[in-house]
Amino acid sequence: MKPSLPKGTRDFLPIEIKKREFIFDKIRYYFRLFGYDPIETPAMESLETLMGKYGDEGDRLLFKILNNGDFLAGLDKEDVSSGNLSKVTRQLSKRGLRYDLTVPFARYIVMNRQHIKFPFKRSAIQPVWRADKPQKGRYQEFFQCDADVAGSTSLYYEAELIRLYDSVFDALQLPVIIRCNNRKILFGIMESAGLAEYFQTITVVIDKLDKIGIEGVTSELKARGYEEEKINILINLISKNEIQELVSYMISETGKQGIDEMNEILAYLGRETLTNKLIFDPTLARGLSYYTGCILEVNAVGVQMGSIGGGGRYDNLTAIFGLKDVSGVGISFGVERIYDVMEELKLFPDEINKSKNILIACLDRESFSFAIEVVNKLRSLNIPCDLYPDIAKLQKQMSYANDVGFAKVGLIGEEERTQRKVSVKDMDSGKQELMSLEDMMQKFKCV
Amino acid sequence: MKPSLPKGTRDFLPIEIKKREFIFDKIRYYFRLFGYDPIETPAMESLETLMGKYGDEGDRLLFKILNNGDFLAGLDKEDVSSGNLSKVTRQLSKRGLRYDLTVPFARYIVMNRQHIKFPFKRSAIQPVWRADKPQKGRYQEFFQCDADVAGSTSLYYEAELIRLYDSVFDALQLPVIIRCNNRKILFGIMESAGLAEYFQTITVVIDKLDKIGIEGVTSELKARGYEEEKINILINLISKNEIQELVSYMISETGKQGIDEMNEILAYLGRETLTNKLIFDPTLARGLSYYTGCILEVNAVGVQMGSIGGGGRYDNLTAIFGLKDVSGVGISFGVERIYDVMEELKLFPDEINKSKNILIACLDRESFSFAIEVVNKLRSLNIPCDLYPDIAKLQKQMSYANDVGFAKVGLIGEEERTQRKVSVKDMDSGKQELMSLEDMMQKFKCV
Repeated sequence: MKPSLPKGTRDFLPIEIKKREFIFDKIRYYFRLFGYDPIETPAMESLETLMGKYGDEGDRLLFKILNNGDFLAGLDKEDVSSGNLSKVTRQLSKRGLRYDLTVPFARYIVMNRQHIKFPFKRSAIQPVWRADKPQKGRYQEFFQCDADVAGSTSLYYEAELIRLYDSVFDALQLPVIIRCNNRKILFGIMESAGLAEYFQTITVVIDKLDKIGIEGVTSELKARGYEEEKINILINLISKNEIQELVSYMISETGKQGIDEMNEILAYLGRETLTNKLIFDPTLARGLSYYTGCILEVNAVGVQMGSIGGGGRYDNLTAIFGLKDVSGVGISFGVERIYDVMEELKLFPDEINKSKNILIACLDRESFSFAIEVVNKLRSLNIPCDLYPDIAKLQKQMSYANDVGFAKVGLIGEEERTQRKVSVKDMDSGKQELMSLEDMMQKFKCV
Repeated sequence: MKPSLPKGTRDFLPIEIKKREFIFDKIRYYFRLFGYDPIETPAMESLETLMGKYGDEGDRLLFKILNNGDFLAGLDKEDVSSGNLSKVTRQLSKRGLRYDLTVPFARYIVMNRQHIKFPFKRSAIQPVWRADKPQKGRYQEFFQCDADVAGSTSLYYEAELIRLYDSVFDALQLPVIIRCNNRKILFGIMESAGLAEYFQTITVVIDKLDKIGIEGVTSELKARGYEEEKINILINLISKNEIQELVSYMISETGKQGIDEMNEILAYLGRETLTNKLIFDPTLARGLSYYTGCILEVNAVGVQMGSIGGGGRYDNLTAIFGLKDVSGVGISFGVERIYDVMEELKLFPDEINKSKNILIACLDRESFSFAIEVVNKLRSLNIPCDLYPDIAKLQKQMSYANDVGFAKVGLIGEEERTQRKVSVKDMDSGKQELMSLEDMMQKFKCV
């Protein structure tokens, strides 16, 4: 039998895990520094929790888990015969795999509210599963990395989350542009253009701007039958990127509130103190999402790639589960894309590519216990190392060290054993040096 | 709608995650120090990979994933009518959730062998899923933590893995007893007693010794109809805990090899250099598992609890997937139980229970931008902190700090703003001190 993996899933080699962990570690570090405590929810949720939260498309893309035991007992054979897929699904399955981290977070708040004090700042780094058609860069199992605050309407958090983005990407040495907008400003612009009643639809069209350009958006809006004059006003207004230029066009309270919110956030932030560029961009729309206030998106500089992060304010986070008036604001890091960008721009530190540290290679049976002693000693000094586990020819052990990617080989034969030293060979330079354990400790500690 | 969780699954609160991470971090650290590189495999595996690997019981307890799309199309209605559960399962489902980390590891080796050099040392820390009946301490989703070496028969690795156990439990400050035995010695003992042909069955009975005692084992063996004289020899031999006492009873090569292996491992190890106690225990059997050589089990000292770790040597790790002659040896950490033991023995450091560091509380609108400046400054010095996001009464902010578990509160009002200082209150002692940012940096850095 030749084994295989389900489509859309991946194995990760040690070198890939190390690179992923490099990204996760930075994100995790700043999540903690900023007070976003980690929580975890189970991979399996009740289908009742998941269904209807992600639209019809989402319902189809949810992975559902077959009931254990005699699942046929609960099956209505007429529904099977008539091909009633949704009824049969409910009979066969009560659980599904997590589809994102936001719905489980909302469920978590409602179920754990006796343990939670609001404002509640939480982070989550967990895999999610979607039965999307697999393609380059899109998998059926992938990680999401979220930081959210629930239970506060303070705009300070929008500013804090923008700073969190700035800090993480600065730590990754990955230059980005952070774009921000406010759904209320977008609504105000549509009011000005006389198109407010089509807010949802037009938001989705504007969201395609990155892909189809301003001309594509214009012609799609025309194709949808909106008046040319209104479209022109709309296009003109979303093309302005100074907030103050929009003030006079805001005709309702909603629009004005959007402007005020934007200004307050920028005041809290002190834009000039950020490492990365933050720009106001009224074309930013964030498509079909549930955002109601500030929205954010992050793009890497100098590489052709979709957004590597996004987020915003969503009122009524937990209303779907019966708990009202809990406002949420959060951001997400697109770690799979961040990985690809960092590979493309060669931003992973060289040490990661050197996959292993020191291999102790023992050349005769009599020296083996000294070799073990050396390995134990190095490890007790927190110096990562390995021992080649057999007495083998020098060439075989060197070729193993080379293939695995050890940075150094510590050779031990009769001479070394007698002197209680190790001949340490640098695999890059080829240089070899006879070293005592004390020398090695001095030179290699805290690697 | 009142949300709920599927039975056997859990949410983790921040404090629980911090304690779990404390354990994972130590394990991860020693995995790396000892050269066991992390790999990851997907949560979903092909059912072909999983089925038949864990016995009939395991096949039933696997979580199976309903095929996406029109799963009714592939359904044979006659099989549904006749209630042929296993055929219908195969028609409805092609994927299952990971049941352990060993079968995916074997599959991984076979599929990635062009990237792997043997001996291949790997670690894995990932959740697994089993449809077991949930009960106290047993969940349907739980983490496994494994370190294994594939592709070497060197007994050095048995010694290294015992040392790895010793190092991790030492770092957790959790005293343990590590018990070891060898399946070949167990076989030799049964040969001596004339019971070798019942090796599998008797191994499973001996494995219950922890639960039913030596009398329980004796009477179960009697009930199974073995001769009393043979049972007595068996019980006598497994009661010896000096290896040398067993030498003269080993009548075949297999038994003698078991003794030699045990002696070689102990010689590599230097038992006296371990922090924890390592004992040879011929009653250790490890039940129905596939072990063929050395076997290991770890128990916590001073607490009533099953084993918190186990492992051993298994020949032909990858034979199920068509790759022969790959010997494996590995150990597993029972993190869920380690967590419970550490709670019971109060071994988690106090700092973990103090869930948060400093809360900056601002008392008037005019000081808010100074408060933000303080928070940004502290974070830039790597001091974790939070800002209460609104101007609220002192009492409200103090009560929030108290409920969330902040160690300190930094008060900022008019006086502090004017002096560019912070009144830092220690939540334990109640003491308050007016500090400059420089004072705070000196006192709180590297928290």
